[in-house]
Amino acid sequence: MKSGGEAALPEWRAGFAAAPWLELRWWDDPALRPEEVDYALVWDPEPGRLAAMPNLRACFGSGAGVDAIATDPAYPKHIPLVRMSIPAATERMGEFVCWSALSLLKEARRMAIAQAERRWDEVNAPHRASQRTIGIMGLGEMGTRAATMLRGIGFPVIGWSRTRKSVPGIESYAGLAELDAFLAASDMLVCLLPATPETRGIIATPLLAKLPQGAGFIGVGRGMQHNLPDILAALDSGHLSGAVLDVFEQEPLPPEHPLWTHPRAIVTAHVASLPSRAERAAAVVERIAAFERGEPLPNLFDHAKGY
Amino acid sequence: MKSGGEAALPEWRAGFAAAPWLELRWWDDPALRPEEVDYALVWDPEPGRLAAMPNLRACFGSGAGVDAIATDPAYPKHIPLVRMSIPAATERMGEFVCWSALSLLKEARRMAIAQAERRWDEVNAPHRASQRTIGIMGLGEMGTRAATMLRGIGFPVIGWSRTRKSVPGIESYAGLAELDAFLAASDMLVCLLPATPETRGIIATPLLAKLPQGAGFIGVGRGMQHNLPDILAALDSGHLSGAVLDVFEQEPLPPEHPLWTHPRAIVTAHVASLPSRAERAAAVVERIAAFERGEPLPNLFDHAKGY
Ligand SMILES: NC(=O)c1ccc[n+]([C@@H]2O[C@H](COP(=O)([O-])OP(=O)(O)OC[C@H]3O[C@@H](n4cnc5c(N)ncnc54)[C@H](OP(=O)(O)O)[C@@H]3O)[C@@H](O)[C@H]2O)c1
Ligand SMILES: NC(=O)c1ccc[n+]([C@@H]2O[C@H](COP(=O)([O-])OP(=O)(O)OC[C@H]3O[C@@H](n4cnc5c(N)ncnc54)[C@H](OP(=O)(O)O)[C@@H]3O)[C@@H](O)[C@H]2O)c1
Repeated sequence: MKSGGEAALPEWRAGFAAAPWLELRWWDDPALRPEEVDYALVWDPEPGRLAAMPNLRACFGSGAGVDAIATDPAYPKHIPLVRMSIPAATERMGEFVCWSALSLLKEARRMAIAQAERRWDEVNAPHRASQRTIGIMGLGEMGTRAATMLRGIGFPVIGWSRTRKSVPGIESYAGLAELDAFLAASDMLVCLLPATPETRGIIATPLLAKLPQGAGFIGVGRGMQHNLPDILAALDSGHLSGAVLDVFEQEPLPPEHPLWTHPRAIVTAHVASLPSRAERAAAVVERIAAFERGEPLPNLFDHAKGY
Repeated sequence: MKSGGEAALPEWRAGFAAAPWLELRWWDDPALRPEEVDYALVWDPEPGRLAAMPNLRACFGSGAGVDAIATDPAYPKHIPLVRMSIPAATERMGEFVCWSALSLLKEARRMAIAQAERRWDEVNAPHRASQRTIGIMGLGEMGTRAATMLRGIGFPVIGWSRTRKSVPGIESYAGLAELDAFLAASDMLVCLLPATPETRGIIATPLLAKLPQGAGFIGVGRGMQHNLPDILAALDSGHLSGAVLDVFEQEPLPPEHPLWTHPRAIVTAHVASLPSRAERAAAVVERIAAFERGEPLPNLFDHAKGY
């Protein structure tokens, strides 16, 4: 296994302790021979490395997006590639999206700046939740859970996906043909799309311009989806009234990046949905056990769709 | 009327424009004679001033807590004193409590400090919402609405009030006899009590010590309920892992107060539930109209209970 670096190994080991029938080996262990590996648990393996494991039976991504594995041109496509989709991660993402939406609603960035300056600033939120429609791009496992939780707080919610969905209380828009109508109705936009060629750079001026004046943006999908200069320009002009950004093309976001100090941007460090290593180890153990009993693996990456 | 100072008058006027049958007069208008006043809309009138209005028919507080009016020893107790309890304010409070609870859950203060230092800090929230029970002190209009919204995000919720309540899904504790059990079960404590002699200084070491180690505190009732030195000490020792404080005995909180810079405290400027002046004017107009049709006034202050 390879995820989180060698420092994370003790935590993973503790997580796998409940399954002594699995022997955990470290990815960079010099004594590890490729033919010994039955299962891999990785985040961003060196290209070609998985292809050189002749007895590999399944590969588990250590996060929900497995794009760093799937984009290895040598990846052996007949080996199931399993996305880390576990209820704990979905819950955490829903909570983070709710926190982000409420932070934009209540102007939390402005309140944090006032606190840093020890200044009493009676920030009066201009809207209630019921007055701000949230548009979620990507109504998958995470987007759907976030939608339900946002509804519980009182936000009207709409969603956009490739195929049409029927989620109670959530209006579903599908495909490029309905994108403009979806954007025009979104007072806050949440991006929970996977990283694919179609979604690269999607959050850019042409799309942002279709949002209502003063909209908010919450970026929790993948950094490659964000055109940061365009997002900054929209924040500067006030077309975007605020943004919460959790994912970046370059992580860590470099300290000199202007986003850090922008008065309308909240920057977080790719933390929207980090299930603990114990939670993830438990999910992998459970899946390997089911797989060895002959059951199918859930949450498979689809190479044709690209997510 | 007197609320928000003379600067707020144009906004109030606009709010009352829909009711031309009401003549709006400014509290400090030198031409205003006390016997002309039928209704008062005030936040903190000078003691004795209301008592000197012989034709006063009802007094409307401009906020949910009318303690600044009721504590005037000369207040004419036969004149109905109406608390500003409007759905818009209850919604806003619920949203603010949700934002506060999620901010404590996700360690938003730590994230804000990291952003201020342009530091990539992978804050991994130790818990999910479903693992943190929220205890609400004061299950009135606001506490009950906050409870329902918190449940929608996945938090288990319990409540404490004088009398027992039956709110679906929320365990109700009542009276002093059940306070300790309530506190022991509260991973985050929300104070939404009114300002009364019983609640003065209630949030102090003896009470905080009964919370689980590492609990969070959200103070959105009244500043007179908070013993700030005790709250600071609990934050310093780590017994409280975090706090969101919105109300203070001295407002504005003075710039030199140590709370502003505390790494585990979020300070906001009494903004948890500020309905707009338009929303409040509409509520007052509606109530006066109903009152003049002979209907009873809702949300009356009870001088015996003290809230
Ligand atoms: N910030 C973080 O910490 C963090 C953590 C975990 C995950 N993530 C991100 O969140 C993403 C979503 O995760 P998930 O588990 O919800 O994924 P998922 O279940 O695969 O859902 C993906 C959704 O995106 C839609 N979609 C994909 N391509 C599209 C396109 N070109 N146009 C319109 N809709 C499109 C899909 O539509 P169909 O349903 O119609 O196919 C589906 O609704 C992950 O891919 C990852 O990038 C971020
Ligand atoms: N931060 C802000 O911006 C802001 C804005 C608005 C209001 N507030 C504060 O929020 C408070 C609550 O508002 P509300 O509209 O929900 O008031 P409410 O409907 O009168 O509810 C008060 C609740 O407190 C309980 N209570 C009162 N005294 C108690 C005692 N000694 N022991 C135990 N429980 C007691 C009551 O119990 P019973 O039901 O059994 O009587 C009731 O459940 C207001 O008084 C105000 O101080 C703050």
